[in-house]
Amino acid sequence: MKKIVLLRHGESTWNRENRFTGWTDVDLTEKGIAEADRAGELLKKEGFAFDKAYTSYLKRAVKTLDRVLDKLDQDWIPVEKSWRLNEKHYGMLQGLNKSETAAKYGDQQVLVWRRSYDIAPDPLAEDDPRNPRFDPRYRLVPDGELPRTESLKETIERIMPYWQCAIFPNLKTADQLLVVAHGNSLRGIIKHLKRISDDDIVNLNLPTAVPYVFEFDDRLNLTKDYFLGDPEEIRKLMEAVARQGKKQQ
Amino acid sequence: MKKIVLLRHGESTWNRENRFTGWTDVDLTEKGIAEADRAGELLKKEGFAFDKAYTSYLKRAVKTLDRVLDKLDQDWIPVEKSWRLNEKHYGMLQGLNKSETAAKYGDQQVLVWRRSYDIAPDPLAEDDPRNPRFDPRYRLVPDGELPRTESLKETIERIMPYWQCAIFPNLKTADQLLVVAHGNSLRGIIKHLKRISDDDIVNLNLPTAVPYVFEFDDRLNLTKDYFLGDPEEIRKLMEAVARQGKKQQ
Repeated sequence: MKKIVLLRHGESTWNRENRFTGWTDVDLTEKGIAEADRAGELLKKEGFAFDKAYTSYLKRAVKTLDRVLDKLDQDWIPVEKSWRLNEKHYGMLQGLNKSETAAKYGDQQVLVWRRSYDIAPDPLAEDDPRNPRFDPRYRLVPDGELPRTESLKETIERIMPYWQCAIFPNLKTADQLLVVAHGNSLRGIIKHLKRISDDDIVNLNLPTAVPYVFEFDDRLNLTKDYFLGDPEEIRKLMEAVARQGKKQQ
Repeated sequence: MKKIVLLRHGESTWNRENRFTGWTDVDLTEKGIAEADRAGELLKKEGFAFDKAYTSYLKRAVKTLDRVLDKLDQDWIPVEKSWRLNEKHYGMLQGLNKSETAAKYGDQQVLVWRRSYDIAPDPLAEDDPRNPRFDPRYRLVPDGELPRTESLKETIERIMPYWQCAIFPNLKTADQLLVVAHGNSLRGIIKHLKRISDDDIVNLNLPTAVPYVFEFDDRLNLTKDYFLGDPEEIRKLMEAVARQGKKQQ
């Protein structure tokens, strides 16, 4: 039985402050660290032994992965980081909180950005210090591939090549892979694996740091998917994320 | 200016308990974590920006590296782990403390193992649960390459191919590389870079978690090497390691 586990990072400081984070490299909170540890313990209890792990260039995901691997006593496994697993880029919204955003763009416009599949927030200006072209970590990425803003559709389009070329084919030789990333980058992978429509994917609310297991047969066809943990608790967590989504992203 | 920084991991639980550790995967102590953080802060103060980092399969090195990268705000840089950067394998001595070792093998024999360049402790038996052939992390290593014990000479011989093929040539395109490993695996690299004799290398006592910087010209010839930090403090740390070496490895 081949398995891929998807894991959304634990709570970050800007989750807590109700700000649009996107590619901003904010840290985990103490709660986020505890969530990561719990995910690691859950995976250990279920006997997971990963061949390789993947994460983004953002420390809230990298550090969630580090904690999980340490709890699993699998600190040694290979880890590959890619900017393609980063969170959706929120353009000009990055750093703004809900009231700032509503004041600047109006409630109606913010609602459109939040709920639409293919409409992106206004892009960062070329001279905006938040523009990823100034960040040395992206210096090897062709400029035309580096977003200044993204719709969910665009986020998914930049994740898919990495999923298809770097992650998924490895399951032919590996048995278990782990991907620690972000709410929207994981939406892309789940949309692809479960063939979810453009309209429905925006309603998928992934809880933080709950391992989401996908099982495949030897031909790598998906046979089963499920969250690890108490179903009732997970349902409450997903509802909480959905409610949060009405106030923040 | 091209630079490689070598860093020995912070204090581990078995350093503290005065046991032969070798390939045993023991954790950092609180002191070891603080040492790692301090190394990261020192590197940050000096403006280091690494292109890539290398570490062993042992968590005391992996976790030292994770802390250093986090302090540098460079959690995102690529990390490659290799069993070839592991500590010297101490064979039958692994897990024994100083008095157990003396009782079992005699003081004279222990002195020979400690001070010689090319004499290894007795090997682990094939059915010894400590034998690395039972550890899944080494399942992709050809059995003939997997040690049951090692002299310092053998340790250096298994590190050198990785240094020569995987680490050092990258300095042609990268500017700064970081290697976080162990007292004896780093001895191998330093012996090679500084052309230290077999007799002299056993007397090199590397302090834990003090960044050791090697500078190279564009043709990758070594031009300079120095420890980061207060020279007087480093001298004391090296003397402390040398004294420790008389009681433990």
